[in-house]
This record gives sequence, C-alpha cells and structure tokens, in this order.
Amino acid sequence: MSAHRISVGVFGGNGYTGLELLRILRGHDGVAVRFATSDREAGRPTPVPGLSFVPVAEAPVGDVELVFLCLPHGEAASWVERHGGGEARIVDLTADHRPGSGREARAVYGFPELNPQEVAGARLIANPGCYPTGVILALAPLDRAGMVDRERPVAVSAASGVTGAGRAPKRELLFGEVFGDFRPYGLGNEHLHLKEMRATLPELQLIFVPHLLPVARGIVETIALPVRPGVDAAQIKALWRETYGECGAIRVSDLAPALADVADTDLLELSAFDNAGLRAPTVTVVAALDNLGKGAAGQAVQNMNLMLGFDALRGVRC
Amino acid sequence: MSAHRISVGVFGGNGYTGLELLRILRGHDGVAVRFATSDREAGRPTPVPGLSFVPVAEAPVGDVELVFLCLPHGEAASWVERHGGGEARIVDLTADHRPGSGREARAVYGFPELNPQEVAGARLIANPGCYPTGVILALAPLDRAGMVDRERPVAVSAASGVTGAGRAPKRELLFGEVFGDFRPYGLGNEHLHLKEMRATLPELQLIFVPHLLPVARGIVETIALPVRPGVDAAQIKALWRETYGECGAIRVSDLAPALADVADTDLLELSAFDNAGLRAPTVTVVAALDNLGKGAAGQAVQNMNLMLGFDALRGVRC
Amino acid sequence: MSAHRISVGVFGGNGYTGLELLRILRGHDGVAVRFATSDREAGRPTPVPGLSFVPVAEAPVGDVELVFLCLPHGEAASWVERHGGGEARIVDLTADHRPGSGREARAVYGFPELNPQEVAGARLIANPGCYPTGVILALAPLDRAGMVDRERPVAVSAASGVTGAGRAPKRELLFGEVFGDFRPYGLGNEHLHLKEMRATLPELQLIFVPHLLPVARGIVETIALPVRPGVDAAQIKALWRETYGECGAIRVSDLAPALADVADTDLLELSAFDNAGLRAPTVTVVAALDNLGKGAAGQAVQNMNLMLGFDALRGVRC
Amino acid sequence: MSAHRISVGVFGGNGYTGLELLRILRGHDGVAVRFATSDREAGRPTPVPGLSFVPVAEAPVGDVELVFLCLPHGEAASWVERHGGGEARIVDLTADHRPGSGREARAVYGFPELNPQEVAGARLIANPGCYPTGVILALAPLDRAGMVDRERPVAVSAASGVTGAGRAPKRELLFGEVFGDFRPYGLGNEHLHLKEMRATLPELQLIFVPHLLPVARGIVETIALPVRPGVDAAQIKALWRETYGECGAIRVSDLAPALADVADTDLLELSAFDNAGLRAPTVTVVAALDNLGKGAAGQAVQNMNLMLGFDALRGVRC
Repeated sequence: MSAHRISVGVFGGNGYTGLELLRILRGHDGVAVRFATSDREAGRPTPVPGLSFVPVAEAPVGDVELVFLCLPHGEAASWVERHGGGEARIVDLTADHRPGSGREARAVYGFPELNPQEVAGARLIANPGCYPTGVILALAPLDRAGMVDRERPVAVSAASGVTGAGRAPKRELLFGEVFGDFRPYGLGNEHLHLKEMRATLPELQLIFVPHLLPVARGIVETIALPVRPGVDAAQIKALWRETYGECGAIRVSDLAPALADVADTDLLELSAFDNAGLRAPTVTVVAALDNLGKGAAGQAVQNMNLMLGFDALRGVRC
Repeated sequence: MSAHRISVGVFGGNGYTGLELLRILRGHDGVAVRFATSDREAGRPTPVPGLSFVPVAEAPVGDVELVFLCLPHGEAASWVERHGGGEARIVDLTADHRPGSGREARAVYGFPELNPQEVAGARLIANPGCYPTGVILALAPLDRAGMVDRERPVAVSAASGVTGAGRAPKRELLFGEVFGDFRPYGLGNEHLHLKEMRATLPELQLIFVPHLLPVARGIVETIALPVRPGVDAAQIKALWRETYGECGAIRVSDLAPALADVADTDLLELSAFDNAGLRAPTVTVVAALDNLGKGAAGQAVQNMNLMLGFDALRGVRC
Repeated sequence: MSAHRISVGVFGGNGYTGLELLRILRGHDGVAVRFATSDREAGRPTPVPGLSFVPVAEAPVGDVELVFLCLPHGEAASWVERHGGGEARIVDLTADHRPGSGREARAVYGFPELNPQEVAGARLIANPGCYPTGVILALAPLDRAGMVDRERPVAVSAASGVTGAGRAPKRELLFGEVFGDFRPYGLGNEHLHLKEMRATLPELQLIFVPHLLPVARGIVETIALPVRPGVDAAQIKALWRETYGECGAIRVSDLAPALADVADTDLLELSAFDNAGLRAPTVTVVAALDNLGKGAAGQAVQNMNLMLGFDALRGVRC
Repeated sequence: MSAHRISVGVFGGNGYTGLELLRILRGHDGVAVRFATSDREAGRPTPVPGLSFVPVAEAPVGDVELVFLCLPHGEAASWVERHGGGEARIVDLTADHRPGSGREARAVYGFPELNPQEVAGARLIANPGCYPTGVILALAPLDRAGMVDRERPVAVSAASGVTGAGRAPKRELLFGEVFGDFRPYGLGNEHLHLKEMRATLPELQLIFVPHLLPVARGIVETIALPVRPGVDAAQIKALWRETYGECGAIRVSDLAPALADVADTDLLELSAFDNAGLRAPTVTVVAALDNLGKGAAGQAVQNMNLMLGFDALRGVRC
C-alpha cells in the first residue's frame, strides 16, 4: 500500500512544529514519510512508526517529492539556496520566505482557502505564521469587501501557548517562570509577525499585542475591528461563511470561540459580536486556532495536499 | 497589645476574597479581627490564628467598629438595609453599592488614590471591582487631563484568573474544564463590570472583552487607547507618576507589566507604549494587578486604613 | 456505509468518560452511535457529527445491539435491573458491577488482555476502574507466576488527573482549589477502588495511596513490589511481554513511563526497575495510562470489539 | 535601625533558592543583606529594596558576618576552599558538604529541630536537601525510638515542583514539556539525594522514587513505613509532637497534608495513617513542605538564626 504513497521528508522534525507535522503525516494515507531529521536525536524514534531521526546531512532528499522545512528561522533560507535547484517541492514553515522577509518574491505565501490555485502550482510555499493565520483569514475578506473603517486602528490582542516560542531552552520559557504567569510582549508594535500581517493587509492600521499564555498550545485573538457604518457582526459572519464554506478547516461560530475547542485540531474558529452603544461602530472579532495545527503543521499539510493533487482536507484534523 | 487594636469583622470570610482579606488583616498590627462568618465552615479555623468561623447569625456586630462585606452579590445590600443604622462603618466588597448598581447614592465609591478624603469620612464604602480598578486608575487621570480622543472607542482586552469568578461550584469553573483553555466571555459588551466603568468614565466609548485565564489569580488588562495628537506614552507615564507618586500601591513601570510581578501583592502596575506608524495615534496601556489584592481585599484594607486614621499603606503588601 | 455498521448507544454521554467514549466511537468504522443521553444537554450536539444528546427517557434502546453505561455510580445498577431483560448487551463503565460491589456475580469483569473469551461471550461487562486497570494488569501475571513475596505489603502510590473524579461541580475540584496543589486522599487504605483490586488480587497485601494531580487527565502508579529472591526487573518485563505481546494496548518499556506518553491514548505503559542494595528484594514497577482512555473508554471499546466480533484494537488509539 | 542589624551576604542570589532566600531576608528585622551576587544580572535590582546584584568577584565578603552559598553544586565547595580562612560563617545550601558528599566532615549538617546546639556553634553549615528534609525529619525520631521494622524496605514516593531542579535552561524543564505531564525519575534508587538520606538513616532500607510535578513549588512525600508490631499512627504522631513541640516550623496534622497548605511557607507538615488488615504492619506517613521554603531557604534562615543568636523562628514564615 505504501508503494502508492508519495514520499515526503521533514527537516527539523524534533521541534514542536516538526513533531506535530509528523503526527499528522502519520495518519495521512496518501504520503509516506521517507525521513525526518534531527542532529540531536539522530537514531531515536520519530512519531512515525518504524522511522528514526537522521542527521540533516544524511537526509535522502533525492528520494522525496516534497520536503517540509521546520528548521530554525534563517536556516530554511540557506537550505533553499543550496538545494533550490533540486527536484523536491518545498513547504517552508519558517518565516524566511514570508511577506516582509525580503525573500517573499521567491515563494507563494500559501493560504489554502485564499489562493489554492497558486498553492497547487507552487514550487516553494511560505507557510503562514501562527498569529497571522488568524488575523489574515479573519480580516482579509472583510477588508476586501469594504467593511473595515481604515481610518481607525485595528486593535489585535492575542494570546498564545508557549510552544509558539519553540523548543530551544531559554530561561523565560522554563516551567518555573511561565507557571501562573500571563504577560504581554512585543509591546510597541514590534512583533516579528507584524511584517507579515502588514504586507498582506497594507491598508489596515494594525496594533498587535501578543501575550504569553500558560498553556502548551493554542491561540486566541480578540480584535476590536472598526467597521464602516451599517456593518454588523451578522454581515461579517455571512461573508466568512460565503468565502470559506460551511465545511473545512475554517468554522464560523455564533458562540465565543475558545482555545479548548480548537486545541489538537487543524481548525480555525471565527466569530463576531456587536458592541451596542458606541458612536464609532466597532465589532469584536474572535479567532481561535492551534498554533501547531492551523497555525503551522495543519496548514502545511493542507498546502501539501493541494500541491500533490489530494483533497485539500485529506488527513487534516477538522 | 491587642488592647490598642481596633476591632473589625468580616462577613463572608470563606470565599476567595474573604480568605484573602483575613490573610492581610492577620498581618495588620492596627486591627484585631473579632469575627469572620461562614455558615458552611462554622467552627473551623480561619487564617487568623485562634479565630474560628461563626455563623452569620452569631456575628457580634456590636463589638466591632468596622465590618467588611464579602457576601454573595445581592446579600450585601440587604445586610446594609437591615443593619445600616448600627454603629459599625462598612466596606462592601460586593457590586451592590457600586456605580451603576442603582444604590450608588448610599455609598462612597472608594479609590484610596483618587478620593482619599471622601473615603476617610465615609460610613459605607463601595469597594471597586477587580477589572474596573485597573481600567479606572489607568484612564481616569488621562481622560481628566484631556489626553484621550473620545471620538474613538477604547478597546480593553482583559484576562483574569479564575478566583475572580468566586468559589461557588460551577461546572465551567472545574479544573477539568479550565485546564489548558483560554476563552473570552461577556462578548457584546455585556460584562457586569461595564456599568461600573461607564458610570465612572462616562465620556469614553469603552469596549471590554474579558477572558478566563487558567491561573488561580491575577489580572492583565491591555488597552488600545486612542489619544489626542501629540500625546505619547512618556507623557502618560509622567502624568500617572505625578498623580500617584512614586511610592504606594500603584507602580508605574517602563517594562511590560506581568501577572507574576503582582500576584500575591496589593500592587497595581501600569505601563504605556507608543505604536509607531499609525495615522490615528493610539497608545497601548497595560495594567496588571491581583484580582484578590488591589482588585479586592488589598484595596479594601487601604480604604479601611483611611477610615480608621491609619497610614494608607499599613499592612498592605506593596 | 453506515448500513453495515452495528448500532450502539451511550447512557450518560456528557460526563468526561461519556464524552471520551463518543470521541473514540466517532472514529470507529464498525459501529454507528445511535444515541447518547444527557438530560441536561438534551438537544445540544455530541462529539459525533450529526448526533444530538437526548434525554435518558427518550433513548431508543430497542434500536441498538449494545449500550454503554456511563451513568453516575449507582444508577447503572438500577438501569440494568430495569432493562436487563432487553436485547442489548451492556458495557457498564461504572463501579456498580465490579468485584467487591456485591453485584459482581451478574457480570464479567472484563480485561481484554486477561479474559478475552469470557468478554466475547458476555451479556454484561463490568469495565474495570482506572486505578485498578494499571495495578491489576501489572501485578496479576506476576503474582500468578509466583514472583511476588506475599508476606510483605505492596505499596502503590498513584496520581490521577482530575477528570477521574467526574464532572459534577464540587468545591474541591474547582480550578481555584486544584491549581498549584497536589494532595493524597483516601488515606488509611480507604479508596473505593481497593475493593476491586483486593477482590482480584486477594493474596496481596495492598496499600493504595492515590493523589490528586493538577492535570486534566492521566494516571501514573508507582509500585514498590516485594519480590521473591532472585526475581528482577528483567524477568518481570519478560513475563509481561510474553503475556501481553509486543503489540496492542499494553506497551512494556525500558524507560520510565510518563503521563505525557499515554495521555490522549488508550495505552497502558509498564516498566520495572531494580533497586540495588536492599536486603529485602523489591522492584519498582511503574504503570502509566490515561484514566479516560485505557482506564475507562478505551478499554470499554476494546471490550465492545471482542463482544461484537471485531479485531480487539479496532478504533483504539494505540 | 539597620545599624543594629547583622550584615549577611548571598552568593548565587538569582536562582530560585537565592531569590527565595532574599525574599525571606527582606522581611527579617535582625539582619541586613549587604550583597547578593549574580554575574548575569549584575546591576539589576534584587528582591531586597535598594539592593542590586553584584558580580561574584566584587562581593564585599569582608563586610559580612555570614554568607549563604546558593551557587551551582560543586562551586560552593571550591568557594569554601578558597575563602575558608575568612571571617564569615557559612550556610551552604548546595549538596557540596552534605552527608555522602565526601566533604561532610568539614561541616555541620544542620537541622534546627534535631541538632540546634551544633548548628549554633558551627562555622560551616551543610543545609539539608529538599527531599531529605521531609524524609529525615519524619523518620529519624521514629527509627531512633525503635518503631521502624528495619527488615523491610521503606518505600518513599515523592513529588516535587520544578523549581527543585534549578533555573538553568534545560529542554526537559521547558513549560511546553512539563505542562500536563507527571513522571518518575531517578528510578533504580539513583537519585543524588539518596546518599544524604542513607548516610543519616543508615539502618533503613530506603527506596526513593521522585516524580516531577507540574507546579512551580512544593513537595509531597508519601511513605509506606514498615513498623514494629503494635506501633500505630497515633504513637507516631505523639512522638513527633513530643520531639518537635506544638509550635514552630514542623506541624503535625491529623488530616492529609497537601502541597497547597505549605506552599510559600517555611513549614513542614507531617501526618500518619494506619492501614487496616495488613499482615505486615505498615503505616502511611505523609510529609509536605515547600522545596524552596523548609526544603531550602527557610531552613537556611532558621540555621542562620541559631548561629547569630536570634530566636529560631525569627523572620521565618510559619
């Protein structure tokens, strides 16, 4: 049966994103994981039965049709520069080729629900960041439809579990530091992901305040969205439903999205709520997703599905 | 030595707020806790050495000069109606007499840093709510100084540990439900505390989105504050420092306030950050406090200190 | 396709065990869930797509071949008394028919790895408790093989996530109480589950000390096992491997089992370690399982598989 | 007033133990902290108001009467070798001079409740480890009184919050790894602290299994204690009460000790429970303490108090 599967490989399989990707691919019956790299864990088992980690230098790149790059930021770009002429197509989960990186021209910034045909034909996909995934999928159709009041800032308050910060040991990520805490960071509109959001939503005045949440995984983004007069939450939800359909990896809800509803899935849940009595109309938009799922590995597998001609949601947890 | 102490009593001493109040009073050398009530725990020890809980009906109200009401919301108002003609002065920690309650005329809404003289002379204090404490102490002086652009909404994103929701057993507060979750609630500008904030800051267009945080205690409020042209974070911090002084229960910081910095204290930490490149100038304001400390029992003890003629910070953890 | 599926029903589908069971059954391609009951949540969606909860009184018991009872302890017995003459076979996940309950004669106490043939033919299965599952599967084969020194007590120290205590609201299970805590309970060998363990392992002198662990799910049991002279960890692991095989829901490891390795699975992981230098030889045995998986719903599905003639591990997460 | 205080210094003030020590000393009115070292944090504020960290090389050792060593294990011994001839007395919180270290002859292993006079006269104190503190204070008096059956092993199952493992960044201590997990370690009786316990309780056959608990701080130790015929829990508690008195840092309880009862304190809580129906009599002993409190800094301050002639509990949180 695995004879009919398409071979893929994973660089950087032992970080949080790489491990999650391997867990999803393990349950995907259209592909076979040919290798997963980790210099540190070489020889030890991966989440894929029967597969052990290999050092980066020993990865049989020539044997696979598609590779995922879950390397540290910066290393993906240099890997692409060295191997770009090879045969394998690439899904880069790092920030190296995303909008605002300076290398965005080389890649397709791939949202399976927004530009599926571009994704299908791409040679190199820049897989969106976790925070931008929620913000862009929520706001891009609304802005395109003229619903947003661009004269007022869009205030995004976001909270992410700690796996969003990677698996490299740092004091501020120790359990003893994070337990019982909650803190904003990147204050002053300085978070790396803003470049990606701004390049994609250039007309919006974004304010982005992320917070470190004492959970392992998941993101909730609460957005105070200035809207044109007459625009309300019902219209916003209707437009999302029209854009994204009822089924798939994006779920539009009338209830408040919660982290627990999307953790360990590849879903993005969206909702919108009117705020009565304001002179300047503003809708509260809420997006919830798993930073490792729809915010990283889940979306990467959706992109892979399109590139390899599979159904977009094959193997995806939604 | 306890002969020189002033006798006080606590109604509702076995909820999270009441227990915290007893812990603070235990370390206060100007008062003696004469009684603490709990029908459920009657006869069991309180956090005050040598003192056991008594049923509400057996509390020796006549023996004390001041009582704290930590009863369920609604019961404080009826207690005051029954005992209002008694001798003891009252600090009500419930919402029953706060602005917007319909009973606000009977009480002084007491912020020791904003209206200390009114507090000192009051017979009945409505002690501010946890969320409003951060919002009002941050914004009231700024709005009074004309720094806020009242034409645009003020978006408050807040997160609170679960003790803010009380100690009565409810499914949604079970450990098995909250663990690993994070969720907004009161969407649509419907939180009870909005009444209190709006009544105090009537000119501001407040949007308030609280979130339930998987920690026991603490609040972080992140505010996208529309400011008048030319107003920046440095001016805001300077005004706070001028208003609140360098010492005391309010600390103005140049770093991002975090929950861990204020948990188990009676501090409120404030900071402000510029957001470059917006056409509509907006400063990010962050407030961090312990919902049981400055957000409830700590502020109540500050108010008591003023009422009894003590130093405002006596026994307060800051 | 669902025409070929066997219909099953779930009583008490909205507790932690019931919900977990529904999640497993959702992914099982041999059965169709015909109903799930919850008086409280009647009309709301279950985890099974397209299926809503129905009140207990409206469950179409006559339409299914097998029912799972996830009712509160005590209610399962009375349900069986009322419906026992019906057609459906029964997997009872409560304690009502387990060894030591006084009703054990009516049921087969079903461990799919220990008595599969009895399970296959049973009309009523008493599904083992979460704590006993680890202890019994670890110790029963060792005791039967004469490896245990019955003259000395077997000290079991166990820790369980809070979902093991059910979903009914109780103060001691509130997030505000459990967060940051860890506590033994049932001290004095008084835990309900001891009856079940003692009835199954009557020759052993069990001491059982459970602890409440501040996580949602999972159990680790650490056992100081007195062994006969000459018995060591290697022999113990070899016997388990012989008894349980290499594949399946029981995994024998040379490393220390950890809760994270088995959470969200239906696995039981076992290991054993020698303690050098003791005059009275004692091996440390460690068992890890998910209280909702192998400790409840996962094992129930294994039992169902045997009863319905399916492969024992069909749909099981291991 | 600080003129009458005795000057002390802290080496390694920026680890979890050092920070806790500084927090306790801040509230101690008999001493003044003259310096606290941290090469990494030099110049930044310590928890002591007005005091900033200094590099180790710049610590004014000559100005203090007593130093605390909270350095990494191994560095304390070399510090003592270099400065041992100086004037300051030393409380070493590392394992470097504890029983079993090979350097125990140079120091007094100091338990303020077991050998206060030796402590008072010591020049160098080896402050006990966190796990041994609970085990030794619980068992030493029982063994001395002949209550323990030395022919059977003593099985200690212990769980500790992560600050017990220090503040140096390691992958296995990241929040993303520890959250939701619980795992035994040091299996096979290999934990470092066993040396210290064995050297102090040489006649007992100790089995020690520690577990990593997903909380920041606190230890619970549950001990299956083989006792001589006729010995019961009541006698054990009576002996502890006789040995340790009713007041002080050791509290004997009739209820199950819990981590939450002792977190953020310098208490050790002990209890004992009979296990009915065993042929080989075994009492369950439970000890709970804060690994940073009685298990480290709190006990160090008790020892300091004795060395400097203060009341043993001055400034101690109990």
